[in-house]
Amino acid sequence: MNASSRTAKPFLTVLEGQSVNPPPIWLMRQAGRYLPEYKALRTQAANFLDFCFRPELAIEATLQPIRRFGLDAAILFSDILTIPWALGQKVEFLEGEGPVLEPLRSADDIARLRPDGAIERLAPVYRTVTGVAAALPKETALIGFAGAPWTVAAYMVEGHGSRDFLIAKGFGMAQPDLFDRILDIVTAATIEHLSAQIVAGAEAVQLFDSWAGVLAEREFRRWVVAPTKRIAAALRDKHPGVPLIGFPRGAGGLLADYAVETGVSCVGLDTQVPLAWAMKALPPRLPVQGNLDPVALVTGGQALSEGIRTILDQTRGRPAIFNLGHGVPMTTPPAHVAELVRLVRGG
Amino acid sequence: MNASSRTAKPFLTVLEGQSVNPPPIWLMRQAGRYLPEYKALRTQAANFLDFCFRPELAIEATLQPIRRFGLDAAILFSDILTIPWALGQKVEFLEGEGPVLEPLRSADDIARLRPDGAIERLAPVYRTVTGVAAALPKETALIGFAGAPWTVAAYMVEGHGSRDFLIAKGFGMAQPDLFDRILDIVTAATIEHLSAQIVAGAEAVQLFDSWAGVLAEREFRRWVVAPTKRIAAALRDKHPGVPLIGFPRGAGGLLADYAVETGVSCVGLDTQVPLAWAMKALPPRLPVQGNLDPVALVTGGQALSEGIRTILDQTRGRPAIFNLGHGVPMTTPPAHVAELVRLVRGG
Repeated sequence: MNASSRTAKPFLTVLEGQSVNPPPIWLMRQAGRYLPEYKALRTQAANFLDFCFRPELAIEATLQPIRRFGLDAAILFSDILTIPWALGQKVEFLEGEGPVLEPLRSADDIARLRPDGAIERLAPVYRTVTGVAAALPKETALIGFAGAPWTVAAYMVEGHGSRDFLIAKGFGMAQPDLFDRILDIVTAATIEHLSAQIVAGAEAVQLFDSWAGVLAEREFRRWVVAPTKRIAAALRDKHPGVPLIGFPRGAGGLLADYAVETGVSCVGLDTQVPLAWAMKALPPRLPVQGNLDPVALVTGGQALSEGIRTILDQTRGRPAIFNLGHGVPMTTPPAHVAELVRLVRGG
Repeated sequence: MNASSRTAKPFLTVLEGQSVNPPPIWLMRQAGRYLPEYKALRTQAANFLDFCFRPELAIEATLQPIRRFGLDAAILFSDILTIPWALGQKVEFLEGEGPVLEPLRSADDIARLRPDGAIERLAPVYRTVTGVAAALPKETALIGFAGAPWTVAAYMVEGHGSRDFLIAKGFGMAQPDLFDRILDIVTAATIEHLSAQIVAGAEAVQLFDSWAGVLAEREFRRWVVAPTKRIAAALRDKHPGVPLIGFPRGAGGLLADYAVETGVSCVGLDTQVPLAWAMKALPPRLPVQGNLDPVALVTGGQALSEGIRTILDQTRGRPAIFNLGHGVPMTTPPAHVAELVRLVRGG
């Protein structure tokens, strides 16, 4: 046990570069549809964006998994597509279909985005952050977040989720200047959005680059590494000491370059990252987070206990936060999450 | 220029471990719906499996891209799901929806598979191979193929395509013995299937592990590396000197372990593999193939020429086959393929 005595929040201690044993734990998408209390709460809003923008509902959704499982960090309940919405793009969430946006495909479409006032339109999100911060136990940290510019821009151009984002990638390759304009707008808005969350009470922020893995090296460097680096630098400048977790899902062999070149404080490891390789490839004191296969969580039993054991063994001695390599699946039995927390804490 | 004088087929020369300049070129999914002559041919069969099993049609589909573009290798026109079909599983290809299988979910489902006679049911495929071999120009090699056991078993259990194959992964984690039984059956059938293609005239074979990237390290080693190693050993034994190309799409940081541990003759590089990293991580004389982003091919122009240039520069001196990092997209203008071939050959 070499936890810091300076802070009572083990999650933040790890992000300061110290290893803590047992490691702090939270789970991506820990609030949501696998919890019956979330499903009940969700019926109070007409649609998903409305739910995200009603602080009394979003606060409650954020707190539900903390109450149930005593996790070490809460993450703001919101969505990465609040940014396109705030920029004036039409965004809808269709039940069972996922998000649908009126896609950007031309200079005119881009010119219609309204960066001015975008952050003001997101005021309910910051009220949620403040409300959660006031309600959390003193040992529990609060994480703010945003989608990383590539992932958000990919939805803005493609218009919906996709296995490979061929349209967005093709647009970016065929019209790099226009695509850079979108990335610039999203990057600037993201800096403001994360900064406002920090001001409102977020103690760390995470950038979700969920679709980093569909990019080849050249585009990864231009569309993932460069904007993330710009965000990391701006936040360091505005909010020194507030950690930024970067999660470039599917970065593969580019993970170490991402970690070093962006200047993030911690790197999220997706399910597919081989841990022994990552421990050698990443800077030795860089905090890491994640990697447990969500399918092991859904499965439970031996698959879960062995998965946990492997991660605890392989990250020993490095500042590490326990998490999944992707979000909690909808089909997860809540009892498996309780078991996960118990096992990680050595119960 | 250091091409072998022993063979007139540059594709095979590279697979023997010699670099050739300019590199031989073929494209994954080079036959198919982006070609108007394929679309015309396809109307002659009632459904996709019927098309695959009619040698006169499959031979013609295989030859179309060779005639149009003069590629260095032809690849048998067939599908990875002919194996489940031959094993007695119900497989259908629905227009616009992709494959639908009656999923395996229990020991009883698995017991109903009929490995005996499976290869006999695939006889039309081997007649296609023989027909293509007889028709190819003397400098053009013929590639046979199969899906790798994990990818095929994933479809067999999931029942359809998926972004993450949660059902198949969950089945494999919860019931590892049953899943191993499926993998064993598929692996044995795959060895026979590739062997029969070689006997019929295939000069090299490729294993497509299209969904290797959804697996965490532990499952990757058990479900991707181990069965591939078994196939490589069996083929080396039965057909010494016939090269096996392994394509573990999305292997990420596990690519080098895959290359070394499976014993494949050549490793396919997906779009996302960073080339400089791969050139260092892979054994120095191991032949490689692939990596060009298909989106660059669809886009054409500068994106295409720069993408090609990067790959030629970074693989210089290593035995390398030019290819995409994934299949030719349906939206590809055939003129871009002609331009690609011209640029790779220094025209």
